[in-house]
Amino acid sequence: MLKRDVLTVIEENRERYIEWLVEFCKIPSVAAQGRGMEEAVKFLDGLFEEELGLQPEKLDAGGYPVVYCEMKGASDHTISFYNHYDVQPEDPVDLWQTPAFEPDLRDGKIFARGVADNKGNLIARMAAVHAILQADEELPMNVKFVFEGEEEIGSVNLPELAEKHAEKLASDGCVWEFGYRDPDGTVQLSLGVKGMLYVELTASGASTDLHSANATIIENPLWRLVWALGTLKDPKERVLIPGFYDEIDEITETELALLDSYELDEDAMLDSLKLKKFVLGLKGDQLKRKHIFEPTCNICGVEGGYTGEGSKTVLPSKAMAKLDFRLVPGQDPQKILAALREHLDANGFEDIEIREMSSEVAARTHPDEALVHVMRSVAEKVSGKKPNVVPNTPGTGPMHVLCQALGIPSASFGVGNFSSNNHAPNENINVEDYIDGIKMAAVLIEEFNAQLNKEKSVVG
Amino acid sequence: MLKRDVLTVIEENRERYIEWLVEFCKIPSVAAQGRGMEEAVKFLDGLFEEELGLQPEKLDAGGYPVVYCEMKGASDHTISFYNHYDVQPEDPVDLWQTPAFEPDLRDGKIFARGVADNKGNLIARMAAVHAILQADEELPMNVKFVFEGEEEIGSVNLPELAEKHAEKLASDGCVWEFGYRDPDGTVQLSLGVKGMLYVELTASGASTDLHSANATIIENPLWRLVWALGTLKDPKERVLIPGFYDEIDEITETELALLDSYELDEDAMLDSLKLKKFVLGLKGDQLKRKHIFEPTCNICGVEGGYTGEGSKTVLPSKAMAKLDFRLVPGQDPQKILAALREHLDANGFEDIEIREMSSEVAARTHPDEALVHVMRSVAEKVSGKKPNVVPNTPGTGPMHVLCQALGIPSASFGVGNFSSNNHAPNENINVEDYIDGIKMAAVLIEEFNAQLNKEKSVVG
Repeated sequence: MLKRDVLTVIEENRERYIEWLVEFCKIPSVAAQGRGMEEAVKFLDGLFEEELGLQPEKLDAGGYPVVYCEMKGASDHTISFYNHYDVQPEDPVDLWQTPAFEPDLRDGKIFARGVADNKGNLIARMAAVHAILQADEELPMNVKFVFEGEEEIGSVNLPELAEKHAEKLASDGCVWEFGYRDPDGTVQLSLGVKGMLYVELTASGASTDLHSANATIIENPLWRLVWALGTLKDPKERVLIPGFYDEIDEITETELALLDSYELDEDAMLDSLKLKKFVLGLKGDQLKRKHIFEPTCNICGVEGGYTGEGSKTVLPSKAMAKLDFRLVPGQDPQKILAALREHLDANGFEDIEIREMSSEVAARTHPDEALVHVMRSVAEKVSGKKPNVVPNTPGTGPMHVLCQALGIPSASFGVGNFSSNNHAPNENINVEDYIDGIKMAAVLIEEFNAQLNKEKSVVG
Repeated sequence: MLKRDVLTVIEENRERYIEWLVEFCKIPSVAAQGRGMEEAVKFLDGLFEEELGLQPEKLDAGGYPVVYCEMKGASDHTISFYNHYDVQPEDPVDLWQTPAFEPDLRDGKIFARGVADNKGNLIARMAAVHAILQADEELPMNVKFVFEGEEEIGSVNLPELAEKHAEKLASDGCVWEFGYRDPDGTVQLSLGVKGMLYVELTASGASTDLHSANATIIENPLWRLVWALGTLKDPKERVLIPGFYDEIDEITETELALLDSYELDEDAMLDSLKLKKFVLGLKGDQLKRKHIFEPTCNICGVEGGYTGEGSKTVLPSKAMAKLDFRLVPGQDPQKILAALREHLDANGFEDIEIREMSSEVAARTHPDEALVHVMRSVAEKVSGKKPNVVPNTPGTGPMHVLCQALGIPSASFGVGNFSSNNHAPNENINVEDYIDGIKMAAVLIEEFNAQLNKEKSVVG
């Protein structure tokens, strides 16, 4: 049942909730570089204590802690929210119009590193609980917050933590971290995430950089790396590692049908990226299908030799590439890692070292779960439009280890939009989407509880 | 005729000449980065004025000036010395045992950026003139110093300058900038240099870096670059650009015969570079032949995406590679540039931009030139051993435009050694090789004049 006063409370507290987010985004909590992490945890502690009157726990599995907070509600049902307080590095710094960690409000947007991924959603959900407590003084159901600090570095310690604290993570449904809107403003409701294998490939040559006159007779590790990379994917975008596609789950009719309502505004996306076409010139259903259901092999970065101004003639001694493979249900990151090693060896690249940086299994929740039905209805109520449901987003997260592996359904909507520039310069969200995000979370807590009560009484 | 007192004067002035070099090497004259260039010119001005009583001219063709100094001698013959006062950038900085621009004397060596390439030779030749003047008060022949400031950035303004100042550059023989010793201490006498084409290849994608989840549908410029590079050379080290090898001059019997005395201490080189084998496992004559007579296609550097710590999942918006082609006599850099463009287009890489950074034509002097005969004899007298003569070094320089194009024979010997680490960290020369370098230059001025006098009287 929709409580009008919760929405009123949210409107009354707009400035306060924006202020929370702005303050949080000033903290450069870049886990990859070990910056601002303690400060971010302290900020969350302060917000919980001063605004919600709660003391969160720190769950530790060796890395940056999970900030965990459990609140008793009227029923014995539980909803959990997974978010993360770490953000991506801000480089390339010079492409930001305003500094990444000095949040800037302009044109109805908030610009800051992490504002979309994932601080906007994290704070919106805390604000939702705050608003309910202001309106009602009691939560209708138990609420659990699970705020990770290592999502952007592959959630390296989360599997161990999930095993250790399975009872704390238990819930009737987990609202996943992110959420976006299509170019026309339609809320996206996502039921899963892709998996991930992130590796560094390193080629080594002479023990020191050399004058490039020696290129006649000394092997260049940049060439080794270029040739090795060339064996991984061809210009038709086909991954050439044997077995890469073999164990992918077949896509069901229901999943495929969801693509119809999934909006990909091709022109808007191409315009905003100043591109003429998508990869391979794909359009329409083929494009959507590739985006949602296909795995990737992406070069995140290559480093080697001289890349400064002018023309240094050098034969480098080392070359390195970072690659991420986005995986789909059925693909096992560890099997793919082994296949990559085997493939490089088979092609004469035994010299290329592979360093595994992170791996995650893909996850999908069934569209018929109660959580999904309620989230559809909540998104429509708050935004005024039916949401577009996608079987999974093109992105990745540790959903499998926190949810599906523990038998918890999971789905997500949130405060981002199609051009939020996650992981890129000028990351942003719309202020109104942020306020709607708070509203969706608040109404969801009400309605998911009501739905679970209904199901219980039917069963009972 | 060898004047014993010149050699004595050089020995008496050892510390002074080392001091000159050390002071010069403190100046970070990196043309590619526009650092320390004025300071280097000022230093040379001071040295000429205070130590040789001369005022050098500055020859200008738009970039850093050529420091030019002409000294009248007893005969009307002229010898010229070409050197350069700019050096390579010092990165990777952290691999230097002592800072690149804080010259360090240890183990009988001087370590500093530029000490081998090319400041050691430059100062040695000034010291030779100083010593002759101390011993004799007059030079036996005219001496011209041509000290360039843009050699490491491809001598971009030298062709124009050479045309404008052809009469100033006129001489009976030009001693080229560099010179090295084999691992057994044998002086190398080099009769030529390879040519060069240096380009930057750039691939562009979306207008901003993106979250790598978009790798399904957005083209990655790093992949474009990797694929494009893969079409340029195969793992057999064969350059695949059509026509690349077509116009190479045939190697003469005389040139080929010189390879017999050219020493390449394979084990010492592999040891010092901590390598197990040369490229393609080559050895002996095949290795030497490839090193001296074959062109290269070398990747100097690749830049793109995230290359810092940890695992940033990004789809970069740009990727860039720097390539140098070392060319051999017969190859025209401009034709190769055109062939590169055509090749990329033909392989579907019209999108890859090519930026020409520099180009130079290869050059070789005939082994029967008087200059070469005298230099052979001088190297033997000073070092006590017959030099190894090479038809050309594997390196590059603007020899053609300054010498062969003006009808001037050119050859070179100098103060470097097989592990001088030119263009690399811990660049160094042996102190004794430096002193010998001064002696070789001084004796050469005496003996080249005597030889030219003899030839003149025979002709007369």
